Amino acid sequence: MTAAATGDGRVEAGGATRYAGTRIGRVEDPRLLTGRGTYVDDIRLPGMLHAVFVRSPVARGRILGIDASAALALPGVRHVFTAADLNPDVREQWHTSVGPKSPETPRPPLADTDVRFVGDPVALVLADDRYLAEDAAELVEVDYEQLPAVVDYTRAAQAQELVHEAHGSNVVGQLAGRPAATLADVFAGAAHVVTDTIHQQAHTAVPMEGRGMVVDYSASTGELTIHAATQAPHEIRLFCSRLLGLPEHRIRVLMRDTGGGFGQKVMVQRDEMALMLVARRAGAPVKWVEDRRENLLAAGMSRHEHADVSMAFDPDGLILAASIDFVSDCGAYPTPWPVGTSAAVGMLFPGPYRVPAASFTATTVYTNTAGRVAYRGPWQFETLAREVLLDNAAREMGMDPAELRRRNLLRTDELPFANPNGMTYDRITPLETFEQALEMLDYDAFRAEQARAREAGRYLGVGMSTYVEPSTPGYGSYATEAATIRIEPSGKVNVYIAGGSTGNSIETTVVQLTADVLGVAIEDVATIQGDTAVTGFGAGTAGSRSGSMTAGAVRDTATILRERMIAIAAHKLEAAPEDIELVRSRASVRGVPGASVTVAELAATAYFDPYSLPPGVPAGLEASARYTAETRSVWVNAAHVCTCEVDPVTGGVTLLRYIVSEDCGPMINPSVVEGQIAGGTVQGIGGALLEHLAYDEDGNPTATTFVDYLLPTATDVPVIEYGHIETMSGGPGGYKGVGEGGAIGAPPAVVNAVADALAPFGARITRLPLTPESLAALVPPEALR
Amino acid sequence: MTAAATGDGRVEAGGATRYAGTRIGRVEDPRLLTGRGTYVDDIRLPGMLHAVFVRSPVARGRILGIDASAALALPGVRHVFTAADLNPDVREQWHTSVGPKSPETPRPPLADTDVRFVGDPVALVLADDRYLAEDAAELVEVDYEQLPAVVDYTRAAQAQELVHEAHGSNVVGQLAGRPAATLADVFAGAAHVVTDTIHQQAHTAVPMEGRGMVVDYSASTGELTIHAATQAPHEIRLFCSRLLGLPEHRIRVLMRDTGGGFGQKVMVQRDEMALMLVARRAGAPVKWVEDRRENLLAAGMSRHEHADVSMAFDPDGLILAASIDFVSDCGAYPTPWPVGTSAAVGMLFPGPYRVPAASFTATTVYTNTAGRVAYRGPWQFETLAREVLLDNAAREMGMDPAELRRRNLLRTDELPFANPNGMTYDRITPLETFEQALEMLDYDAFRAEQARAREAGRYLGVGMSTYVEPSTPGYGSYATEAATIRIEPSGKVNVYIAGGSTGNSIETTVVQLTADVLGVAIEDVATIQGDTAVTGFGAGTAGSRSGSMTAGAVRDTATILRERMIAIAAHKLEAAPEDIELVRSRASVRGVPGASVTVAELAATAYFDPYSLPPGVPAGLEASARYTAETRSVWVNAAHVCTCEVDPVTGGVTLLRYIVSEDCGPMINPSVVEGQIAGGTVQGIGGALLEHLAYDEDGNPTATTFVDYLLPTATDVPVIEYGHIETMSGGPGGYKGVGEGGAIGAPPAVVNAVADALAPFGARITRLPLTPESLAALVPPEALR
Repeated sequence: MTAAATGDGRVEAGGATRYAGTRIGRVEDPRLLTGRGTYVDDIRLPGMLHAVFVRSPVARGRILGIDASAALALPGVRHVFTAADLNPDVREQWHTSVGPKSPETPRPPLADTDVRFVGDPVALVLADDRYLAEDAAELVEVDYEQLPAVVDYTRAAQAQELVHEAHGSNVVGQLAGRPAATLADVFAGAAHVVTDTIHQQAHTAVPMEGRGMVVDYSASTGELTIHAATQAPHEIRLFCSRLLGLPEHRIRVLMRDTGGGFGQKVMVQRDEMALMLVARRAGAPVKWVEDRRENLLAAGMSRHEHADVSMAFDPDGLILAASIDFVSDCGAYPTPWPVGTSAAVGMLFPGPYRVPAASFTATTVYTNTAGRVAYRGPWQFETLAREVLLDNAAREMGMDPAELRRRNLLRTDELPFANPNGMTYDRITPLETFEQALEMLDYDAFRAEQARAREAGRYLGVGMSTYVEPSTPGYGSYATEAATIRIEPSGKVNVYIAGGSTGNSIETTVVQLTADVLGVAIEDVATIQGDTAVTGFGAGTAGSRSGSMTAGAVRDTATILRERMIAIAAHKLEAAPEDIELVRSRASVRGVPGASVTVAELAATAYFDPYSLPPGVPAGLEASARYTAETRSVWVNAAHVCTCEVDPVTGGVTLLRYIVSEDCGPMINPSVVEGQIAGGTVQGIGGALLEHLAYDEDGNPTATTFVDYLLPTATDVPVIEYGHIETMSGGPGGYKGVGEGGAIGAPPAVVNAVADALAPFGARITRLPLTPESLAALVPPEALR
Repeated sequence: MTAAATGDGRVEAGGATRYAGTRIGRVEDPRLLTGRGTYVDDIRLPGMLHAVFVRSPVARGRILGIDASAALALPGVRHVFTAADLNPDVREQWHTSVGPKSPETPRPPLADTDVRFVGDPVALVLADDRYLAEDAAELVEVDYEQLPAVVDYTRAAQAQELVHEAHGSNVVGQLAGRPAATLADVFAGAAHVVTDTIHQQAHTAVPMEGRGMVVDYSASTGELTIHAATQAPHEIRLFCSRLLGLPEHRIRVLMRDTGGGFGQKVMVQRDEMALMLVARRAGAPVKWVEDRRENLLAAGMSRHEHADVSMAFDPDGLILAASIDFVSDCGAYPTPWPVGTSAAVGMLFPGPYRVPAASFTATTVYTNTAGRVAYRGPWQFETLAREVLLDNAAREMGMDPAELRRRNLLRTDELPFANPNGMTYDRITPLETFEQALEMLDYDAFRAEQARAREAGRYLGVGMSTYVEPSTPGYGSYATEAATIRIEPSGKVNVYIAGGSTGNSIETTVVQLTADVLGVAIEDVATIQGDTAVTGFGAGTAGSRSGSMTAGAVRDTATILRERMIAIAAHKLEAAPEDIELVRSRASVRGVPGASVTVAELAATAYFDPYSLPPGVPAGLEASARYTAETRSVWVNAAHVCTCEVDPVTGGVTLLRYIVSEDCGPMINPSVVEGQIAGGTVQGIGGALLEHLAYDEDGNPTATTFVDYLLPTATDVPVIEYGHIETMSGGPGGYKGVGEGGAIGAPPAVVNAVADALAPFGARITRLPLTPESLAALVPPEALR
């Protein structure tokens, strides 16, 4: 049947795809751009109470007493809950359906005997409105015995003070991996060895919409409805069911729009556990909407880490070995278990290079700061460390950094390639994307310009990075994705997807793919999402999986209907199914003008005249399917190249050009792909230059507003230029994930560009962020005459 | 596989059904009995406006002008819409997916040039609250030229005045059928002929919840959400899409609970059309909740009809022929097209009797009264007319009415039986149910008691009726029903059904059937319903189809999952699928103690470890299926027997015993079956004795509150006694419909009992309702000494 999906998974509708691959305008935009998105704070329920957390003002301390009487005396204040009320109701404090069961770290919904970071939730106030609840929270008197805090994670392992006394140590986990010592001989015999200790500062996702939740429990039916700002509504439902011991089928999680997640909203945190626990006690719906200060205080931090990294090279600059000893800070209450991410840093450290030997160790420690959460490419430190080290190596060896990479990058004829730390890459194009990015820049021309500028006392630099990332993970709940499609009796199409819209354009992706398979107009397709009642379990937005997994689910589901439509049309038109083509909402007999039937007529027959259907074709035009990933990982690669000018006096950095060449397989919608890359890249730039979730030495956060927590704005970032190399994945449509990459590639590209600009001063950059102050300090005053 | 459904459709779970057939307590009850049902009036949306209709105070008139300025001047009044605003937006005024396209009767959403009944909607006021809207509605000045009204439907065909001038006649439709004259020879040659003209008064459904709708249109997304009191959410969606020209997939219809429908809420009426039309103009959500007066004024009437009926008998009382000439009133704006129902009256008139020859004609006329709507067994006049006629015949022939029926009722060995008017009955038990009901009464003992009572001056009577009714119609959209079942990752089960809960216990039915097929506990199953987004199209509650069609959909869907669970269990336990039994949420290997796996474990494997599933088994445990009815009609039969005492002085009737013996096939839940029978029977008793939607000669309704519209209460009705004969239908589980029967059988049983009681006075009853006044008038004063 020519109408079916082609072997590579791309659909040929009447011989050509119509929408997939084109720059269809986002169907979400009319809603979102006119301010009609529906976020958690837009949910208003009759009788709803408003929740505000009382949070710890000390980083480490003992709770000696809590007096809520003044708060409760305020008219309109309904409840003040503490750990004594809520924590005993916890049935299961940890659950994740992803991967094997993880060791548990503690998760009291509210702080019990001790507080462990500034922002630790201590009590939960419910009142008739938010203002009252805020006022009442200030009246809750908590008596703390303040204790010395563990703030410097690099000394946490040796500290006397313990973040969790019951744990017996501040070390959460240590992975032996393969210690650097095992490669001692390789390093000893190498022509050149480069070593650095590279530090990345704490920063975090800062989504436009903070976290938030409305819980609405019906005592009479035992049903709990949760409106959440989330990346994974089904995961919330599953978690809540385990937490409360409530049957999963009595819980419904809803979202319409979520204003970004980036990993911060992929798993349930303690604040949200507390909300779930009060649902049955409040006697009314309860809304909690995190404000910005709370988000910066308590929604979690990421990226706080360093590593000792080394590489050995032969005389031609070919890599002989790579070694990383990684230490990361997971704060007081990490979500999820952070050791897995640490392992990924080590295992991915060799990157898309021909590295014959490698080693890694990883250590994760507790501190009295906000808990570590996932953040777009949570393992991205491996790229930062490797790419910065490569530039340092090139400088030390007197080799051009592009040439050093060119010699070592994997060629497609070497694939699949098993790196020494256990990762096997395939279907990637590291060298091709790298060369494309350099060509887009005109690398030689830039070097010439740079030389002229230096003569004029201006310091330009070029930085590059390459990486290979795992997307679309095929393990645990991530391995499958569900969709339901109903061609309604009028011929219009509703597509139900398990995930939700977090700004990732998933609705646009869905209508493009569906319209192509079904041969209907894009306007005739709508997406219904973000409701655990409308599809089976789906793991949501995480691991750069939404696009490609949803593509698989939609393709499999739509293909069932396509074949059924063709069978009905063939029967009606007295033609062979293989002669039917399905284009523009009409099934026609190929080569027989006028012999056709509309999709609306097919639907009316399927629903209202079932006895006239051909044998074996069921009534209705509706199908559900669950796609299972063909592989455990889909590899994606890219090269970032950027140029900048650095003012050596002020340390100010101006980015000049920013180029990303990536291989995410065929693009369902180039505008969406570019939007994903741009978003991640800008976050990566922010991480390199600006963002810092800093604490003072007593553990007091010093960046709790956007005055202190600096975000990149449009003026900080040049127009990003995109290159595209297309290699088919083994998955549906050949698609690969593209959600996280920008945030992985950008920091080292920026660091390397700045270091390149400041190379005349002998600057070596090993610590982020590149604040003006830190850069200016790299330039000896005497060098400026 | 022993696990599959058995041939007759009943499921054997491990050898025995567990829940189907038992008196499980209704799962709806905790919610409904504690006042936690969610009806339309419970929907409160931010910024919602409240709608009130301005309705005509005259039965027939011309609108000379409408002045809304005083209403609009009230602060908080937002809009006053008239026909000029709304009616031009109508794209398609009629749509029903049931059966062939019907001829159209007019349906202006708001009255345009003319008003045609008292209550005709003329304008729609939207204001910030209901009080304001009510006040404003009174300030809308409508100038009417009052015209003579057509009120007496028996003279409508000849009236000068026309309800719809464009129609050219007050006759909506006339079916020739086979005129009585064709049987003239049979009647002429018969040993006995009985003839009557039997009248039934207008009465109606009066559901506990009136009609109501909240419309919520988003201009930015083009999406319309409708919360409705309805029997058929998908039908509303489809209708609205045609009415507004909106794509069906942009409309979502929601209901949680609906407080009864009985036919009144099965199709969209004009008031609801007006609401849909204002949705896009209001700029805010709009709620309309019908109050009781409005419901009695404008939600529609039913049953207003009479017929000339005759039967011819041979000397032994065997029926030779039956003839009915039926005339019915369809008011000004019938919904749906009323001629189809008239045809059913004629075609079903021979009933479950061995009638060799029959004829019918049917005439339907317009009047200036509320439009005719469906009401529980809309064709039930055929039973009323036939059964009253049979009692009159028995009296005339001096034969016991039970004996007359016994001689004529169809025996099972005569089935299938094609009646002369085109209906072929099968799988019914008219004689068996009749004999069972008489035995439950102890008919002979009652006759003896009656005789003794008469001697004591007390007038007891016994009345009986039998009927066969079509249920579960298999045409148009009624022919199929959809369900989706998801066994969630925790092993808990959600069942999604297309219909909605209108008080018909459908949720209980669903969990019973699903738990049996899946071998899980009933507590582990929840039903999600009343949301057009959660399943494909379903025709809703109508035609006594909910139970049996949903049974088919649930069975087909659950069986898919059952087989998949068994396949996974067999694979895990290394056993043959045929050795797996699925009982009490556990799959076990028959005969191997300890070899078992829980449903939760099966689900966790299916969702989170898809690569370990046996070949060919898809990931996840979720399925959707659409059941198509095996037959165009499932026949149900019953016998009603009741006894009463009538006070010959006051005309007061006291019902003494009430017995129903029915054959609805196997009972999914006897309590639910009895509830359905009781509800219908009480409505039938009300129709016989009390309820009268009366109009004066100018067309003014005289019963617009419950002070004047009399409903039966608990004190009017004895405890109903139930008998059950079980004949399998050809459909799933052998189930038959049971929703409407009570309302069909009760009126003639009551009439016959009262007539029997008053037989000593020579009373002949041919007109309902049996008011005390009308009954007292049948007793000659002199007869009372």
